[in-house]
Amino acid sequence: MAYIAEDFGGVTLINVFTVAAEDQQRLVDLLVRATGAVMAEKQGYVSANVHRSLDGRRVTNYAQWRSREDFEAMLRDPEAVVHMREAEKIAVSYEPHLYEVVFAHGDL
Amino acid sequence: MAYIAEDFGGVTLINVFTVAAEDQQRLVDLLVRATGAVMAEKQGYVSANVHRSLDGRRVTNYAQWRSREDFEAMLRDPEAVVHMREAEKIAVSYEPHLYEVVFAHGDL
Repeated sequence: MAYIAEDFGGVTLINVFTVAAEDQQRLVDLLVRATGAVMAEKQGYVSANVHRSLDGRRVTNYAQWRSREDFEAMLRDPEAVVHMREAEKIAVSYEPHLYEVVFAHGDL
Repeated sequence: MAYIAEDFGGVTLINVFTVAAEDQQRLVDLLVRATGAVMAEKQGYVSANVHRSLDGRRVTNYAQWRSREDFEAMLRDPEAVVHMREAEKIAVSYEPHLYEVVFAHGDL
């Protein structure tokens, strides 16, 4: 579970994976497993939230890190790299970008 | 502000806009204005959360709707269409996809 809020103060990775429909669940399973086994132990991890597109062709990870430095340290971590490479192999393509929240509006 | 939770029960639109760096703030401003003035009044609106990429080249809207039917009704709403067309004109491209949350992990 995660909050999206303007005062979050960390960085947000939104990574859109494009997949063949038959691989969507496999990628979801891998991201879920990697989050629990690896990512959640890394310094600066805040949350990971996996989304499955209704058309079957996308899996998107919305992940929060305490700082850009923590996120970039994770990218260089050999254990994390193994899991990222597995995800990239399942996907047709992926589009990771790092963001800040500028506006959060709605009812809880 | 929004929660990401597995029991959300609604649908999530994640729309990644690619922009020229000089247009990023203009698109953010438009999405913020459209949310407050138009989208938030539509049936089934739950939240809209605008993110600015650190590299200047993306704006991503993470928006929650109560149901797919509500979201699709909004897509046909003439007032909403005007704002969506404005956003599409500023962007180089956009990739909207509708999702369900399958896994939400982290500390609040």
